[in-house]
Amino acid sequence: MSDQLSDTKKYVIGTKQQYSKSFSFEDVNAFAKLTGDVNPIHINREAAAESIFKQVVVHGMLTSALFSTIFGTIYPGKGTIYLGQTLKFVKPVFLDEVIVAEVELTALVEEKRIGTFSTRCTNAKGEVVIVGEAKLLMP
Amino acid sequence: MSDQLSDTKKYVIGTKQQYSKSFSFEDVNAFAKLTGDVNPIHINREAAAESIFKQVVVHGMLTSALFSTIFGTIYPGKGTIYLGQTLKFVKPVFLDEVIVAEVELTALVEEKRIGTFSTRCTNAKGEVVIVGEAKLLMP
Repeated sequence: MSDQLSDTKKYVIGTKQQYSKSFSFEDVNAFAKLTGDVNPIHINREAAAESIFKQVVVHGMLTSALFSTIFGTIYPGKGTIYLGQTLKFVKPVFLDEVIVAEVELTALVEEKRIGTFSTRCTNAKGEVVIVGEAKLLMP
Repeated sequence: MSDQLSDTKKYVIGTKQQYSKSFSFEDVNAFAKLTGDVNPIHINREAAAESIFKQVVVHGMLTSALFSTIFGTIYPGKGTIYLGQTLKFVKPVFLDEVIVAEVELTALVEEKRIGTFSTRCTNAKGEVVIVGEAKLLMP
């Protein structure tokens, strides 16, 4: 029993982790090629200038991937299995903006090892650009 | 009034659109570099072989981006604004598997131009690998 307990990672509700990144025009073009999402608002500066956002917008799924970066490489890290994610794209993310992704452990079903995290991305002005919730199978 | 009506695209509940794609080891490595998600299960064949999945797994967010590809480039297409997406990662996606992403318009609030879509990705065995729902501001 004590062995079993010592094998189980301890998780503290309220634990937060962050990861910051910006995306260049080249990054967004590379993502467009990888996914086929060649919507002009992401890859054509002239077309984007005529859009409601007046400039190139980073793909929402590219920015959202920063949550996965935290989960898979920082916390909980290796062995994490991503079960689900909800995403609200509250504001557009523009090229070269430093985006801070933050996750916070809000609930844990210990016997099933299922962790719930609030997740959000914030821009340099402090505006929330993406908000949602993640479910993970904890390592 | 008739002008206004003719300016409004007609959307039919039940409309479906698909997009198919597979991801190579190089694609997954490129995505890892773009996002910082260098979890060994995505980029290290040896480490992945020792994982529960026994092989390299494509990032969930990379596969999920195929929904955005449909919305931004096929249907509804140009001018679409992505409001939100829910994702359940039901099964892992492996390298070079052909994944079919499919979206279906399930509801429309005409006065707000908000469309709801069911979204899912299926592998070549016909297994659903990702399922969820999207909200769009329709063009």
